[in-house]
Amino acid sequence: MADIKYEIKENIGALSESPKGWKKELNLISWNGKEAKYDIRDWSPENEKMGKGITLTVEELKKLRDMLNEMNL
Amino acid sequence: MADIKYEIKENIGALSESPKGWKKELNLISWNGKEAKYDIRDWSPENEKMGKGITLTVEELKKLRDMLNEMNL
Repeated sequence: MADIKYEIKENIGALSESPKGWKKELNLISWNGKEAKYDIRDWSPENEKMGKGITLTVEELKKLRDMLNEMNL
Repeated sequence: MADIKYEIKENIGALSESPKGWKKELNLISWNGKEAKYDIRDWSPENEKMGKGITLTVEELKKLRDMLNEMNL
């Protein structure tokens, strides 16, 4: 991951936290100086290391929101 | 990915589709015969190939839903 530059523009919130302190977070992140995207990913304490994750556009996030609201969670 | 067994228990919906027909989908998937988890991932047409993605528990999905509802999307 050393070659990837990123900047966390906004920390929206954590979905969960593991016993070792890793958090699954929703953030708004700019990767390599590009336009920021929403991102769901695991992070170590203090956001030092990142795990696997996905990026989502605003449109995808809206659709996800509507989908989740229609589910009986 | 050849060694991973999975079964799509429920196809909840697609968040987007790429020009090549890959879809970012929310599914309920059982990996290696274990208890099914929610999963956001890219899939090729007919779900033949999978891309990177994340798995989410019901609790994480609930939190994500509440978080998205509080955002001005």
